[in-house]
Amino acid sequence: MANISILGTGSMGQAIGGLVAKGGNTVQQLNTSNAAEAVTGDIVILAVPHSALAGIVATRGAELAGKVVVDITNPLDFATFDDLTVPADGSAAAELARELPQSRVVKAFNTNFAGTLATGSVGSETTAVLIAGDDADAKAAVSSFVEAAGLRAIDAGSLKRARELESLAFLQMTLAAGEKLSWTGGFAAVA
Amino acid sequence: MANISILGTGSMGQAIGGLVAKGGNTVQQLNTSNAAEAVTGDIVILAVPHSALAGIVATRGAELAGKVVVDITNPLDFATFDDLTVPADGSAAAELARELPQSRVVKAFNTNFAGTLATGSVGSETTAVLIAGDDADAKAAVSSFVEAAGLRAIDAGSLKRARELESLAFLQMTLAAGEKLSWTGGFAAVA
Repeated sequence: MANISILGTGSMGQAIGGLVAKGGNTVQQLNTSNAAEAVTGDIVILAVPHSALAGIVATRGAELAGKVVVDITNPLDFATFDDLTVPADGSAAAELARELPQSRVVKAFNTNFAGTLATGSVGSETTAVLIAGDDADAKAAVSSFVEAAGLRAIDAGSLKRARELESLAFLQMTLAAGEKLSWTGGFAAVA
Repeated sequence: MANISILGTGSMGQAIGGLVAKGGNTVQQLNTSNAAEAVTGDIVILAVPHSALAGIVATRGAELAGKVVVDITNPLDFATFDDLTVPADGSAAAELARELPQSRVVKAFNTNFAGTLATGSVGSETTAVLIAGDDADAKAAVSSFVEAAGLRAIDAGSLKRARELESLAFLQMTLAAGEKLSWTGGFAAVA
């Protein structure tokens, strides 16, 4: 059984918390009102907006050393909805990994709309969580609790692939905002 | 009825040719053995590998002026399967548009595996063709023959979005090569 901490209690934090519990794993859920509480999980999911990552690094960076840290963020420029705010050849996850050199950073969940984590399906397909990272054990730990909750886990490759995962999520959000994909659907992975 | 020329008779060229015919439109299909034959279509689909675009620009660039030119290519680095060969902040389609300033360049079909164009479905979803471009009429002309063939056409935005479409296709190919998505499936669009 894994001990998983989730920072963030918004729609994504709640949906991922639901998955962890469903899979029989232990979940600690924290938000900014629990700033004084220590993170206890071996896996820590940062279920926050991208703009909140810097604050977490500043306040909890040391505490995250040695842990698997899951970045679910999408660094959209919400003013234009036409760009990401990270360099074109980088990703939010790559930047976070540089900020947390003693953590094992994994990109996951950023391509999933919250509703599809709760229902477990995208259209008639099982919801697939795309996972990218440079540490095989860290990715396996994330895959394990995803699969325990009945979802599909897909190893999308090294952390370098976070760039494509963030690009995919960006496209998916622009299409949903334009009512060309639904917020309860999106891109389904067909095996 | 639209007159559509397809340069390329590989799997994608054949699949798109099948769609055009199915939708009741006229198709002219050319490959390098027809280099002397003039392109007659108002819409010209470049169903070739990315590496062949430069040659087409050189030999048929003037002929493509005034036409809708559809770029279906994915500029993968096939040596590493880990990068695209275009700049991170650009796309193959943006480069082609610069080379063909008198054509209306549209990105389409690059996110579709050939098999899903022929069957019309990705899993249980209707195959969706994502279309990006700066000219609304050009996109509408492509959407029109896609929909006439029974597929779904999705306007993915301006030609700037070709970057995300190429990124999506790159990810999709790496996942299919790793047997995590099937070559007859891939990412389905759930409305």
